[in-house]
Amino acid sequence: MEKIRRQERRIALTKILVDHPNHLFSLSFFSGLFMAAKSTVCEDVDAIRLAMEQFQLGKLETISGAAGGIKYTPVKAAIKIEEILLELAAKLSTPDRIIPGGFIYMSDILFNAQLMSPVGEVFMTRFNTSAPDYIMTVETKGIPLAYSTAKAFNLPLITVRSGSRVTEGPTVSINYVTGSSKRIQTMSVPRRAIPEGAKILIIDDFMKAGGTARGMVELAEEVGAEVVGIGVLVATAQPEEKLVKDYVPLLILQAVDEHNKITDIRPARRD
Amino acid sequence: MEKIRRQERRIALTKILVDHPNHLFSLSFFSGLFMAAKSTVCEDVDAIRLAMEQFQLGKLETISGAAGGIKYTPVKAAIKIEEILLELAAKLSTPDRIIPGGFIYMSDILFNAQLMSPVGEVFMTRFNTSAPDYIMTVETKGIPLAYSTAKAFNLPLITVRSGSRVTEGPTVSINYVTGSSKRIQTMSVPRRAIPEGAKILIIDDFMKAGGTARGMVELAEEVGAEVVGIGVLVATAQPEEKLVKDYVPLLILQAVDEHNKITDIRPARRD
Repeated sequence: MEKIRRQERRIALTKILVDHPNHLFSLSFFSGLFMAAKSTVCEDVDAIRLAMEQFQLGKLETISGAAGGIKYTPVKAAIKIEEILLELAAKLSTPDRIIPGGFIYMSDILFNAQLMSPVGEVFMTRFNTSAPDYIMTVETKGIPLAYSTAKAFNLPLITVRSGSRVTEGPTVSINYVTGSSKRIQTMSVPRRAIPEGAKILIIDDFMKAGGTARGMVELAEEVGAEVVGIGVLVATAQPEEKLVKDYVPLLILQAVDEHNKITDIRPARRD
Repeated sequence: MEKIRRQERRIALTKILVDHPNHLFSLSFFSGLFMAAKSTVCEDVDAIRLAMEQFQLGKLETISGAAGGIKYTPVKAAIKIEEILLELAAKLSTPDRIIPGGFIYMSDILFNAQLMSPVGEVFMTRFNTSAPDYIMTVETKGIPLAYSTAKAFNLPLITVRSGSRVTEGPTVSINYVTGSSKRIQTMSVPRRAIPEGAKILIIDDFMKAGGTARGMVELAEEVGAEVVGIGVLVATAQPEEKLVKDYVPLLILQAVDEHNKITDIRPARRD
């Protein structure tokens, strides 16, 4: 009987931890939930940590002290990241995705949770040491990606809008020039969304010249926040010089040959 | 040694199933991954099923036959759903959310993954028997909710846009009249996003008159798809008569008393 109970406890514990990445659970929480001694919960945690390590499923941290507890972090191994990015590159380079004008149809992939959830964990892995307080993106196509990143980090997501909405209360707006089409645009965010001094990680789906990312940086600075990182799923190889420095692309779009229906997209090399 | 291996297997199996809701895994997949006999994997699955039932963490289905396998479905118990909705109602009714004009500031909640992931599972539980092929929403604030629902269902998400974009290829557009402000708007979707005959579940964050939902229904019908359900997180009590029939609200916004800073919002009663 005790053996069965232990198994069920560990399965339930695994499920709860996986559902709440980067959430710090106290030992007392689980000891109460399972009506088990804290030492028993600790043994369970050790077993789960071992299994996760063995199968490269993420990291289980035990933080000691009064404010301590257990935290599951969905860090991904380098080999797994490479696998995810190669799969995405393969999907994005099929000839039927090429749209007149040399664009690539990406919406179905960007709104696919089975594909974007792991990418959120890739961003979390890459930016974990930057210790952001908020994830920021701009509507619309980058939202699932940024949302998945926010979930992996257990952080709030701020979604910058085009124009300003009456249902958002007071907003902060900036004008910016899109890097590629040189049009003047407005983006805005509810004033209450970002506290002063907040550390912001910007996540977006696509970067060509970097005008939109630059706009988000300016918006963040406008409210006294600090940008600690910029991650994009796909960056174009050209123009090489972007309007923002220090961005982290996961994939590089080298070229789209519209005539021969060939898209050259590949995982970015890490410096 | 064998005991440790079994434990680790079950923990890893739980993690993989939870990460891929409604995904059908073949027994061979796990038997290959763990280098274990299929009968062993079956025993593991039974143990996980038992634990999930005991702690109300979802359902594990075994589908027999050549095309069969194991599938984790994150169905939520009625009591858990009530708990989630009461918590959301409490969060939404704090006085500081009231915006001049009688609106409620909801963005931080709508973009919070820890709050929206469970709501996606609530919608999955409610609409599971409708057997949709696609989840549909309209930009922007309903996206995380619809995305979480799509993840719980393991289905693609279609995001309807305002206007049409050059980077989407051929689009289907319709004009519709917003129910509350009586303005004419355009919404569009890439033609390739919805195959004819597809069964669509519409998910949105907010419904007042129902004009936007009605627009999505018309857009779906325009491409020969069938709407099998409409789910909204918050519906206003007034107007009682909406522009769509048979929608499922999770919360009802009874009234916002701007002067006294009181918001009356509560879980919808189920018929």
